[in-house]
Amino acid sequence: MDQAVAYAREQDGRFLAELIEFLRIPSVSTAPERGGDVARAAAWIAGHLERLGFRSRVEPTDLHPIVRADWLGAPGRPTVLCYGHYDVQPPDPLDLWNSPPFEPTVEQGALYARGASDDKGQLFTHVKAVEAILRTAGSLPVNVKFLLEGEEEIGSPSLATYVPRHRRALAADAALVSDGALFAPGLPTLTTGLRGLLYAEIEVSGARCDLHSGQYGGAAPNALGALAQILAALKDRQGRIRIPGYYGRVRPPDDAERSAWARLPFDEVAFCNVIGVAVAPGEEAYPILERLWARPTLDVHGIAGGFAGIGMKTVIPSRATAKVSMRLVPDQRPERIFKQLERFVRRQAPPGVRVEVRHLASTPPVVVSPDAPAVRAAARSLEAVFGVPPVYTRSGGSIPVVSAFDRSLKISTVMMGFGLPDDNLHAPNEKFALVNFRQGIEAAIRFFHEFGG
Amino acid sequence: MDQAVAYAREQDGRFLAELIEFLRIPSVSTAPERGGDVARAAAWIAGHLERLGFRSRVEPTDLHPIVRADWLGAPGRPTVLCYGHYDVQPPDPLDLWNSPPFEPTVEQGALYARGASDDKGQLFTHVKAVEAILRTAGSLPVNVKFLLEGEEEIGSPSLATYVPRHRRALAADAALVSDGALFAPGLPTLTTGLRGLLYAEIEVSGARCDLHSGQYGGAAPNALGALAQILAALKDRQGRIRIPGYYGRVRPPDDAERSAWARLPFDEVAFCNVIGVAVAPGEEAYPILERLWARPTLDVHGIAGGFAGIGMKTVIPSRATAKVSMRLVPDQRPERIFKQLERFVRRQAPPGVRVEVRHLASTPPVVVSPDAPAVRAAARSLEAVFGVPPVYTRSGGSIPVVSAFDRSLKISTVMMGFGLPDDNLHAPNEKFALVNFRQGIEAAIRFFHEFGG
Repeated sequence: MDQAVAYAREQDGRFLAELIEFLRIPSVSTAPERGGDVARAAAWIAGHLERLGFRSRVEPTDLHPIVRADWLGAPGRPTVLCYGHYDVQPPDPLDLWNSPPFEPTVEQGALYARGASDDKGQLFTHVKAVEAILRTAGSLPVNVKFLLEGEEEIGSPSLATYVPRHRRALAADAALVSDGALFAPGLPTLTTGLRGLLYAEIEVSGARCDLHSGQYGGAAPNALGALAQILAALKDRQGRIRIPGYYGRVRPPDDAERSAWARLPFDEVAFCNVIGVAVAPGEEAYPILERLWARPTLDVHGIAGGFAGIGMKTVIPSRATAKVSMRLVPDQRPERIFKQLERFVRRQAPPGVRVEVRHLASTPPVVVSPDAPAVRAAARSLEAVFGVPPVYTRSGGSIPVVSAFDRSLKISTVMMGFGLPDDNLHAPNEKFALVNFRQGIEAAIRFFHEFGG
Repeated sequence: MDQAVAYAREQDGRFLAELIEFLRIPSVSTAPERGGDVARAAAWIAGHLERLGFRSRVEPTDLHPIVRADWLGAPGRPTVLCYGHYDVQPPDPLDLWNSPPFEPTVEQGALYARGASDDKGQLFTHVKAVEAILRTAGSLPVNVKFLLEGEEEIGSPSLATYVPRHRRALAADAALVSDGALFAPGLPTLTTGLRGLLYAEIEVSGARCDLHSGQYGGAAPNALGALAQILAALKDRQGRIRIPGYYGRVRPPDDAERSAWARLPFDEVAFCNVIGVAVAPGEEAYPILERLWARPTLDVHGIAGGFAGIGMKTVIPSRATAKVSMRLVPDQRPERIFKQLERFVRRQAPPGVRVEVRHLASTPPVVVSPDAPAVRAAARSLEAVFGVPPVYTRSGGSIPVVSAFDRSLKISTVMMGFGLPDDNLHAPNEKFALVNFRQGIEAAIRFFHEFGG
């Protein structure tokens, strides 16, 4: 292990040069004209792994390929499934970049490029870790399977069905995902929970067609007005969701987790300043971090119907729809919550309108025990690299692939990210600090050894 | 008067031919490419009145011209201001017309063309009435001023300021508007009230920018959710508006008016069938006609903000706007109601958002006494033509020019329309029954005499 770490330090310049080559490929998954570049990035990373001794394949999907690469030379040892994504966000707005997004530039100890942190730079830490071990020891202390997708930035449509259909091929003892950030610079961080998601559409229908408000106003159903009443009924003024049974299966964080969160370097006033509000709204009884990580939510994303353009139109809308979603926490189940939502919404419908609730997507919440062997191995590795033990956080977002690992593969996922909170993900001047790149490689080297026993 | 009526009957064929010529001009005011046609229609009707002995002028505005034509040869006698509009709605969808919209066609006793009833055919009844009197008696029993606009179908933007600025030129003892319909075929109808309008926009602002619902959901203000709560608070489930003081100045119709409405041939079940609802929503304590004519309303017309397109986006909207309007009844004052709305909306704003209420437009309600001399003169004229006394109705809509006559000129407006409820206004196959065209001319002839004394 020490030799591998030493090798990685020696080869640092070449590793960076290779990452720059990878970052030069503008693999923007949402842009149809970049389809060839996305395929090129898939081939690049698959070839790279092949040359390291992995058995690689590029599997076509309806859209962008999935790259799989296995090294299974440690029979009897545990298997680690390394997940990452080689696609990137669009670079727009281009004029706000200080250097071109696909011409990686090192400045003040950081590499600036689209995808530097999210996620090419981070998935490359796993690749360089296996290289360092293979080149020094000749074999890995664990079996390693790479699962790299090119559709993460567009919602992983292919992977959602791919994972359950390839249970045997993907079978592993733990998954490793590096697609996140340290809670603060220098503070190693393990993410032990993700909120789930339930995305739905509510449609209200009133009169046969749109009506003139002068001719019919006062005796005709207004679908938008009715929709507003339904949406308002979903939540009280304190931000508490009023759907009966909604909180029934919410498992609160335990006391140890809560007090660990309270010790995190988190400033509620700074949080409010960042989003531009005097006071953060929501459930006052809970600290902000708990609201973000362990409390379920309901947000309205958009409302359509009637006339919302420039000027005035005196229309009584006959149809209106709203997109709403809920972030769910353990042990809420999306299917059950959807039924509760549907029942509640139907009951709220005012006289004269019909209501339909449509399920658009869902992802179950995930929680990983800090006592899972892989998480303990990751914790030891991080402490060795950073000199301090890691903090345990959760994320308010949802990562469908981690939910799929949990549900279909029945494995725990180690989520150790090496980005920084100010890495400008999805924004101009995305960056990845070189120190974090090196620490990520070393942490992965150590993790493979710690977990391999 | 009898000679004039006889003349109109004799000249019936020519009058129809002239109206057809007028209808051939596609004066669609909302279509920029029809600007020349709108101007041509203005010149046509101005020239027509000039040849009858009127002093005509075509006055340019920022958009379509206003036609003014005066005959002031009866000093000491009252003056009637005849209002009409020579612009028309677009004819789309063209494929649903049985004959081309600008090639007027007579079929089964009705003239089919865009503008036949709304309003070229109806304004032409006034023109032909003055012709019949002038050609038989040599002079009119009243002074007559025509005020004809080309922007009615786009909201009369020029006329709104024109009327108050031309108080002296437009001075009259009563106004006459024929731009409506009989309550039922054969039933002469005088409209004695219009609801007013207050159109406003509510804007809610939350965070500095749109936020990701995974990262911030639970502790960030959702502008759309807050807007829904505000809109829902405006009305209770029975359709009653909850703004304090809102109903304070509502003057109920008197007992005579109420019982007259109860005798009108109006079928509540048929009304519900037309709009496609089982039960008409709204204030159950009031009959539907009273809800439509004498009760104020509040309707939501459109909501913008966040993401309402195809698919899913997990955005917490930082800004959201709603267009709302209220139909007002006597003696509600738009300025006062706007202040009440603003105060109420600000108070409803949930924590973490700022709210702004913008006034977009307003028109005061109008009520005309059935005892006003001009209305009594119109009633006698209608009874003479139809053989039965007129019914008195109101309209749930708003006609800004009638409000302007009421406020700026301090005169009563006689609203006697000769269309039918099934004339297909603003729709394919607009028509005007020939019998109604003739009755309209005769009623106007009689009205000028009755009012002139």
